Amino acid sequence: MTYCVALKLKDGIICLSDTRTNAGVDNISKYKKMFTWEQPGDRVICMMTAGNLAITQAVISLLDENIERAEDGIETLYTAPTMFRVAEIVGDAMRIVMGRYGPGLSSAGESSASSIVVAGQRAGGAMRLFQVYSAGNFIEATEDTPYFQIGEHKYGKPILDRVITEETPLNMGVTAALLSMDSTLRSNLSVGMPLDLAVMRKDGIGFEQLRRIEEGDETFSQLSEAWSAALRGAFDQMVEIPV
Amino acid sequence: MTYCVALKLKDGIICLSDTRTNAGVDNISKYKKMFTWEQPGDRVICMMTAGNLAITQAVISLLDENIERAEDGIETLYTAPTMFRVAEIVGDAMRIVMGRYGPGLSSAGESSASSIVVAGQRAGGAMRLFQVYSAGNFIEATEDTPYFQIGEHKYGKPILDRVITEETPLNMGVTAALLSMDSTLRSNLSVGMPLDLAVMRKDGIGFEQLRRIEEGDETFSQLSEAWSAALRGAFDQMVEIPV
Repeated sequence: MTYCVALKLKDGIICLSDTRTNAGVDNISKYKKMFTWEQPGDRVICMMTAGNLAITQAVISLLDENIERAEDGIETLYTAPTMFRVAEIVGDAMRIVMGRYGPGLSSAGESSASSIVVAGQRAGGAMRLFQVYSAGNFIEATEDTPYFQIGEHKYGKPILDRVITEETPLNMGVTAALLSMDSTLRSNLSVGMPLDLAVMRKDGIGFEQLRRIEEGDETFSQLSEAWSAALRGAFDQMVEIPV
Repeated sequence: MTYCVALKLKDGIICLSDTRTNAGVDNISKYKKMFTWEQPGDRVICMMTAGNLAITQAVISLLDENIERAEDGIETLYTAPTMFRVAEIVGDAMRIVMGRYGPGLSSAGESSASSIVVAGQRAGGAMRLFQVYSAGNFIEATEDTPYFQIGEHKYGKPILDRVITEETPLNMGVTAALLSMDSTLRSNLSVGMPLDLAVMRKDGIGFEQLRRIEEGDETFSQLSEAWSAALRGAFDQMVEIPV
């Protein structure tokens, strides 16, 4: 499985993904699920993938190959005029790949279901956050629900539901994303370290942070332990309410 | 869906279930999923059900009908000498019902998957907590994992993983179960109020608490709000760790 979360806050967008892939519990591998494209000052794009690994890898490869074939007049991630058009290009690539492998997977009883979170900003445009489905269609995050989760999303949802609004400052958003990931890591073996974190500040048109958080990372471990302690502290306060 | 949680602590067993049943989001009903049998001083049994409602209702009805036919020499929930034997009787009833309806459901493409948590104590025996599967087989909670969850279990697992051990006092266990339910209620519409709560103290051989918590229940609302506030407070402390 996979867990990826993206928050679109008033100050910027945060993307966080794990790196575990499994075909059964006895076949676990490490794959990067975050992919980035950056032309500082012009555009910044971050994608995260979940679902059938062969499908999502093919979509990303197709997008990258098309960038190299840009002289053929194909519109690419680097030539698309808007983030909406970027989402359409990702959706088109998804449809092409699904058209090629979907029926075969389906007849073999395998799932081809895949999803891609597309986040970013084009100079002169607004920050946008999309979720592209297997059929290539997509939805956009709005202020009512300023985040998307793909993959193993349930464990990490309660913390987001309680603390995230569009007004949440960017640094608190990073903390919330990491705590949401921490809850998932603790409860589900199919989600695993290391993590990839990307932070795009509004109108920065570039990555303010783009880094890998390795197993045993001191800050993440400290955050995880402090959160456990704070939760237990919060829980201990609850005893005053007799039920 | 459903969410039921049972904790087996050193001081007793706690069972908590919701009451929402749905066949699609446009067909939502209220059904009790907790069933109890009590002969104070002799035995106390609490079951909670999840999965195909027709299957679990048939199992409970069969168990109850057999109690009335006890004179025919059938071993029942009220004559079984041990809790292990109770779990076997429940498993046998599950196998009979699944044998009758499982193939038809399967050929119609419907899920017959069901599970039943069986908790209780027989005078002279230990407290036992079992989870019975669709095939009638079952597992028992041990000190390593002193709880079972059935139904929509993911949202409410992180809190249990962090605060519950076998040593947790009974009142704190009730609080943890309610907070686990609260997290699930907030994140998933298919789990809904009211709740049914049962508390069996060790060697009490009877229900210390057996009550319904209605929508708007003052104590539960207070607990829910206090927990939200405490979580947000805990989250605010996290800002001291720059990530």
